[in-house]
Amino acid sequence: MPVYRAPVEETLFILNEVLDLPAFRDLPGFADLDPDSLEAILREAARLFEDVWAPTNQVGDVEGCMRHPDGSVSTPAAFKAAYDAYREGGWLGISAPEEYGGQGLPGVLNSVVQEFASAANLSLAMYPGLTQGAIAALFVHGDEEQKRLYLPPMIEGRWSGTMNLTESHCGTDLGLIRTRATRNPDGSFALTGAKTFISAGEHDLCENVVHLVLARIDGAPPGVKGISLFLAPKFLPKADGSPGERNEISCGAIESKMGIHGSSTCAVNYDGATAWLVGEENRGLAAMFVMMNEARLAVGTQGLAISEVAYQNALAYVRERLQGRALTGPKNPQGPADPLIVHPDVRRTLMEIKAFNEAARALMLRGALAADIVRRSPDPAARQAADDALGLLTPVIKGAFTDSGFANAVAAQQMFGGHGYIEDWGMSQFVRDARIAMIYEGANGVQAMDLVGRKLARDGGRAIMAFFAEVGGYCEAHADEAGMAEFLTPLAAGLEDLRGATVWFMNNAMANPDNAGAGAVDYMHLFGRVALGYMWARMAKAALRRPDDPRMATKLVTGRFFMERMLPETAWRRSRVEIGADSTMALAEDAF
Amino acid sequence: MPVYRAPVEETLFILNEVLDLPAFRDLPGFADLDPDSLEAILREAARLFEDVWAPTNQVGDVEGCMRHPDGSVSTPAAFKAAYDAYREGGWLGISAPEEYGGQGLPGVLNSVVQEFASAANLSLAMYPGLTQGAIAALFVHGDEEQKRLYLPPMIEGRWSGTMNLTESHCGTDLGLIRTRATRNPDGSFALTGAKTFISAGEHDLCENVVHLVLARIDGAPPGVKGISLFLAPKFLPKADGSPGERNEISCGAIESKMGIHGSSTCAVNYDGATAWLVGEENRGLAAMFVMMNEARLAVGTQGLAISEVAYQNALAYVRERLQGRALTGPKNPQGPADPLIVHPDVRRTLMEIKAFNEAARALMLRGALAADIVRRSPDPAARQAADDALGLLTPVIKGAFTDSGFANAVAAQQMFGGHGYIEDWGMSQFVRDARIAMIYEGANGVQAMDLVGRKLARDGGRAIMAFFAEVGGYCEAHADEAGMAEFLTPLAAGLEDLRGATVWFMNNAMANPDNAGAGAVDYMHLFGRVALGYMWARMAKAALRRPDDPRMATKLVTGRFFMERMLPETAWRRSRVEIGADSTMALAEDAF
Repeated sequence: MPVYRAPVEETLFILNEVLDLPAFRDLPGFADLDPDSLEAILREAARLFEDVWAPTNQVGDVEGCMRHPDGSVSTPAAFKAAYDAYREGGWLGISAPEEYGGQGLPGVLNSVVQEFASAANLSLAMYPGLTQGAIAALFVHGDEEQKRLYLPPMIEGRWSGTMNLTESHCGTDLGLIRTRATRNPDGSFALTGAKTFISAGEHDLCENVVHLVLARIDGAPPGVKGISLFLAPKFLPKADGSPGERNEISCGAIESKMGIHGSSTCAVNYDGATAWLVGEENRGLAAMFVMMNEARLAVGTQGLAISEVAYQNALAYVRERLQGRALTGPKNPQGPADPLIVHPDVRRTLMEIKAFNEAARALMLRGALAADIVRRSPDPAARQAADDALGLLTPVIKGAFTDSGFANAVAAQQMFGGHGYIEDWGMSQFVRDARIAMIYEGANGVQAMDLVGRKLARDGGRAIMAFFAEVGGYCEAHADEAGMAEFLTPLAAGLEDLRGATVWFMNNAMANPDNAGAGAVDYMHLFGRVALGYMWARMAKAALRRPDDPRMATKLVTGRFFMERMLPETAWRRSRVEIGADSTMALAEDAF
Repeated sequence: MPVYRAPVEETLFILNEVLDLPAFRDLPGFADLDPDSLEAILREAARLFEDVWAPTNQVGDVEGCMRHPDGSVSTPAAFKAAYDAYREGGWLGISAPEEYGGQGLPGVLNSVVQEFASAANLSLAMYPGLTQGAIAALFVHGDEEQKRLYLPPMIEGRWSGTMNLTESHCGTDLGLIRTRATRNPDGSFALTGAKTFISAGEHDLCENVVHLVLARIDGAPPGVKGISLFLAPKFLPKADGSPGERNEISCGAIESKMGIHGSSTCAVNYDGATAWLVGEENRGLAAMFVMMNEARLAVGTQGLAISEVAYQNALAYVRERLQGRALTGPKNPQGPADPLIVHPDVRRTLMEIKAFNEAARALMLRGALAADIVRRSPDPAARQAADDALGLLTPVIKGAFTDSGFANAVAAQQMFGGHGYIEDWGMSQFVRDARIAMIYEGANGVQAMDLVGRKLARDGGRAIMAFFAEVGGYCEAHADEAGMAEFLTPLAAGLEDLRGATVWFMNNAMANPDNAGAGAVDYMHLFGRVALGYMWARMAKAALRRPDDPRMATKLVTGRFFMERMLPETAWRRSRVEIGADSTMALAEDAF
């Protein structure tokens, strides 16, 4: 059975030494995260996810979810106790507002916990993950009554949340939504329609399920401008807040999926279900975007999480499995063969995953810190700068991390040879589970278009200019420091590729927007490499402060590998962007 | 349910117009493959695989194989009739020797049939595929009695074959094999040992299963020099050739795998099983290599096959599914949205798969033709040249095609959005099935080392020099022909990258063999791109002869896309080769 060890030391290094969390102590909630408290919390989390969650992952995959004839859905038998341990530990609400029962700690801490949880058991992590997204949307857009009734049990983890967007004929294109909302005399609405692919739409882990549903109020304008957000609980809360009468909401089916078998993916039917408007009429998409942006970062984190756990298991295997001899002569001459780790191609694969994971963790936490600043900083300029950075990073973290996370899971599986293909060894599950992250919360091609088509141009390119200034400025500021040149020279070259590709879009996408579309995915990966390279430069700087620490020496070796072998991909990506759309679009549709 | 349409026209174009099959009519068996006969055979094959095999693919995945308490294994219920139709059509023996009941047609035709079969139902295709490999090994290394007894029922498809190499502690490293062969007084041997991962090791499609088994004769030298090849049938043939007494061979378990659920992957136990030596004592590996080389080409073909069928289904989906609007304005203004195919990133994905598939098919058939020349040409120089080319192409076709085939299946699945992740739609199966091809018959990292560590250096580099001369000569010979420059200029640049990377290995791998190991996979893909580019140049040349044919116009557009967007990857691959092994090997093993 696969094992998992939460990367506590890595995370502490990033938070304390790279992102310098102590410098943010004046923001609300941050004062509680001094290094000692932080370490204590992470070690506590590690125990939960390593010892309680991870052992439920493979059995959950095998058992899967089951829908019963009465429409109820049971999750794998091992899940309830693991979920309860998480709920009782208060993990769901660590970053939730204190006035509704949360602990108010920084969101960056919640991102750490999301990584550990997703690595230990991605399917199980989905349930509280959805709840957290729903909490965020309700906190920002709900009215006082809604918050008072719903937030406390959700923050406690007794009630869970969902996002109901997709219908069978529309996923990305939400303007096509058909679910109808009819006004009731008492100010509530009656929802009628069928939603599909609803994660955690029905399950047995919680007392109640709080659906956030996109629907169209009778008479609303067509397209995305006529969509509103509704709250529709499975059980209508009584005045005292306890679950009351059953709402007209039912699970019609659960999907048979490639992976995340323990996550119940439901077709949810609304048959005149009682619901309440959240936020303004016809502004539902804006309200849902609060949830979607949170979720996109969380899904990017899932890519990293699977990459990490797959790496750990592959590393253990290639250290143990004896097969063949090193090209440079036997390394285990007393044994029948050398361990697989002696082979350069195995080592290359390990290094590529390791170098991704460590920088991706830093970037993920940098994104989460930006989200904290947006929410908690008193300084409008700091909030705007953080919001700009977050807007750029969200599609990159979602798209690039999940593509790489899947590729890394496949590469880790490959190191197992034939055993990788056998379900018992658990590597297949990592690959199958990782695959969804490239698709949900906006397929990665959609993320790339969000980056290229919306985020680059917004506010006259303010966000991307600020990114260039930050990374370019970092390269200049530290150029003369001992040991930094080998990190900053390649980073500057990568940044130049990103700048060149950006300028190319500016010059060519206006005349032909297909030029943006054809290069968007390459650009997203190009951006991802540069952003990871920037994290490596900052990690190297931190590591150089303690050159005698063997962990820091390892860090520098890994960073050099990234700079030498992984960052230069930017040149290839840029060249593909600059080819443009002509050959891509040259073939007539009917000639395929 | 996914559908499949065998690429008959594409195949005819390649065989008749690109590889110029009619020019080989003097070789045995080739005279029967005039264009009309060839087309008739391919259309017949297409009917079988489209109508009879393809409908069994998804149900076979869901049902899987089942081992019963008595050790028997049943395949999915739909398989028997589909297999029988194939067997009765004589497809298994189309290229098998006529003296044992085969049709003696060129192996290139068998490769076409293998592609169709693997695309229609990879799991089912495994059974006759293994039999064909066993036929080849027995034909080359078996004695007259073995051939007389075993080949006719195998060629007829009544008996099937297996290859028994792997044991639980050794896959790649066959020197570690422990299965023992003890001499019996009558000249036969008693086999004792346990083999794992034996495809088609036990099943219900055939009357008998003929195992080819690697084992160590008592007293044999250690390592690969003490391994012999044995034939051990499930039922010992009676004198009249019919299956007689049950041998001491049993299936102890079948594996639960990520994919190819309809292929029974068995643990096979030999408990003093009666077996006969095939070929010479202690030369078993050489004998098995006949089978392994055939199998490697066939596995490469599987990569192409899944890429093709996944592409076909994605194409149908993106033409139908309405979602969003084209960046350049609505293309389906009367409908609620445009079809997905209008989006440049979807089009890019389609083009990348299509451009791979068409060239990969040409290269696969070129490899098969080389194998025919090796077996059938009376001219020793032609045989040697073909053998050299085949030696290089085998690891490239196996490794690069299966990596690309899997990546293409994933990309095709991605075009389905959420539906891609749902098993009903069938795309998940293509991904899960395609995954095995990167692993079995020598994991792709092993293929890369075969190419770089063995094939490049063999005979003083004769094969790679001949490849450079052939492709370089082609570029020069056709440089001035109208329309060819846009194909030959990029091809020459790609070839220069391959030459550069080859020279780099020559200069750097001797001093440090890890330099070969660290760059081997990149080199394999670099080689693959150049070889596919060469096929595109040859296809373009053929297409330019008929510029008014719309299919040829499409061909040229697709070829230009490959040259512009896919071939230039060679520069990036070369740069990674030339980085060498230092940063890859820098981290101490215990520092990971």
